[in-house]
Amino acid sequence: MWQVDADIVESIAIGAGILGTGGGGNPYNGKLRVFRQLQAGAVIQVVDPDEVPNDALCASVGGMGAPTIGIEKMGRGDESLTALRALEEHLGQRIAYLISGEIGGGNALAPMITAAQAGLSVIDGDGMGRAFPELQHCSYSIYGVRCTPAAVADVKHNTVVFADLQSTRTLESFARAVTVQMGGGSGYAFPVMTGTQVKETAVRRTITLAGRVGAAVRAAWATHRDPVEAVIAETGGCVLFRGKVSDVQRRMVAGFARGHLVLEGLDEDRGHRLDIDVQNEYLIARRDGETIAVVPDLICMVDLTTAAPITTEVVRYGLRAAVIGIPAPALMKSVRALDVVGPAAFGYADVVYRPLPGIYRGDELTAAETGAFEI
Amino acid sequence: MWQVDADIVESIAIGAGILGTGGGGNPYNGKLRVFRQLQAGAVIQVVDPDEVPNDALCASVGGMGAPTIGIEKMGRGDESLTALRALEEHLGQRIAYLISGEIGGGNALAPMITAAQAGLSVIDGDGMGRAFPELQHCSYSIYGVRCTPAAVADVKHNTVVFADLQSTRTLESFARAVTVQMGGGSGYAFPVMTGTQVKETAVRRTITLAGRVGAAVRAAWATHRDPVEAVIAETGGCVLFRGKVSDVQRRMVAGFARGHLVLEGLDEDRGHRLDIDVQNEYLIARRDGETIAVVPDLICMVDLTTAAPITTEVVRYGLRAAVIGIPAPALMKSVRALDVVGPAAFGYADVVYRPLPGIYRGDELTAAETGAFEI
Repeated sequence: MWQVDADIVESIAIGAGILGTGGGGNPYNGKLRVFRQLQAGAVIQVVDPDEVPNDALCASVGGMGAPTIGIEKMGRGDESLTALRALEEHLGQRIAYLISGEIGGGNALAPMITAAQAGLSVIDGDGMGRAFPELQHCSYSIYGVRCTPAAVADVKHNTVVFADLQSTRTLESFARAVTVQMGGGSGYAFPVMTGTQVKETAVRRTITLAGRVGAAVRAAWATHRDPVEAVIAETGGCVLFRGKVSDVQRRMVAGFARGHLVLEGLDEDRGHRLDIDVQNEYLIARRDGETIAVVPDLICMVDLTTAAPITTEVVRYGLRAAVIGIPAPALMKSVRALDVVGPAAFGYADVVYRPLPGIYRGDELTAAETGAFEI
Repeated sequence: MWQVDADIVESIAIGAGILGTGGGGNPYNGKLRVFRQLQAGAVIQVVDPDEVPNDALCASVGGMGAPTIGIEKMGRGDESLTALRALEEHLGQRIAYLISGEIGGGNALAPMITAAQAGLSVIDGDGMGRAFPELQHCSYSIYGVRCTPAAVADVKHNTVVFADLQSTRTLESFARAVTVQMGGGSGYAFPVMTGTQVKETAVRRTITLAGRVGAAVRAAWATHRDPVEAVIAETGGCVLFRGKVSDVQRRMVAGFARGHLVLEGLDEDRGHRLDIDVQNEYLIARRDGETIAVVPDLICMVDLTTAAPITTEVVRYGLRAAVIGIPAPALMKSVRALDVVGPAAFGYADVVYRPLPGIYRGDELTAAETGAFEI
């Protein structure tokens, strides 16, 4: 068990912004919210999955909605708490531990905010090891955790409980429709899990991973080394492309930010072009028409000079970026997972998933390393 | 207290089809469902609002969705029961009496079906005295009954509980969005009321009114009198127009059947034209461009020869119809009600509501007349 402080949060926000593959909501807003909690004296404790009692009641909390909405329409900051309370009331039981749905962007920090408000602990892990656009894409759902009951709440504290639904896909369609009516953003609380289920289905130690990635970037800043290389070293990823964003097509479709980006090559990629398809997250990267990285592997965009994450809602013409490929967590590459988060699940029936080489660094972290950010 | 039999249901279905002003769902399907319950031995009891204990827990049940969906996509018939059970579970209390949200079309009969399934009684009344397209248009909401908790369920028994919402308008937008995701149709259970609240807010004895209107039509058939005249006599309405449907524009917009009809005059209306605007129900009637009947007054379309109701989902080119205007219930004509169900609430800011002369016949019925269908 360890406690977050402002310094660690600063690192996690950077790392989660990178691991978010463009999505998960803006990490900057989330960071400020955690800072405010810490300034107010909140103690935010993080526990390793191994430390969670098997029968403890756990739930995931976070924000739902397109990132483009998230930066235009500020929430109150207690939407997820309101959803959690509605879920607890429906259950007639209290939740003891919170965990991220996705370690990407703001949703990496969302459970810390709710945990501070509710006096709970956060589990070091998440349901994706990155960010994905839809609820059924989380490992909890993929590995059999029941999606209902689930709750969403909005800025006006309107609360909706999905009492009993057939599938997480159904929850996705219903909760998304409600979220659109809520103005495009909501806080959610789901699924309810036992400690055993968390241990079986969560992607582990991703808060630590995000913190280490961010810390590596910050260390590079401080020592005038290349922060992009620091990301590569810390994640086990590779630079897919260096270039300048030359075209951004982005539109809101049914509550999602969909779009397409083009980068013109710089440095050794000069004269080449990278195309990226977007659905809240970066899904497919094609270099001169050839597919070089595919969901569920992580396609991350960072500032070429600072390695600051460039999320899909802020990417714009002229940014100089490095596009980094990171191998997906093992849990997201199983046959069972690829049915849900492989390219075909996003409508790319003709794209074959050829995994990027290497191992997701979070899969290699041990319980002893949770909260260890020394480089 | 009285019991419905197949003969009374036959009459109620006709009357509710007429009072539904084109909406409320197809009464034919509802009728067949009640018949099936009666054939299976169900006893369906109807009580006058005056007979409901003040502290009894009551709820409205029915179907939500565009009538055009209702005739294409059959439900299971127990969606409202599933919603009722979810509502009861959320409350931790059992509901004792059911009441219609709207006396129009299928929703006049929906509580009877659920009552038969759950062994409950139905209250003789409803929340509109007609049909309206949206949830906030019911008198329960207009006169201050809290809209949540509310529940909806679909054909797959997916259930959603709206635990705590700001307003019935919010419930309308959330529940409508979920209903669209459910395939366009759902069963609902809301609001929860005490017997006192029912007495204060319901439009009374409208099951009896619907039954009397239907019985009058059937009596006219049997005795070779004009059934349209029978409707006029029984409702206190007037014939606005006799004509042939010459143009039907109907489209699905955000879960509603919107559209526009044109009738070319017949008999004494020959050479004239009637335009009707539709949003699930018939909202505005204009004769040669002059507004002659406006929501909340009832604009009802019936077959010119048989007086069989013509609902918005079955109206089509070539039908010969009588368009009947019926004064709205007093509860729907108050200043408070007109804010919600007057023409401005439907986007007709420039249309002035000039009430049709006369009194809604249901307002004149006494407790002693509940269930009295003798003509």
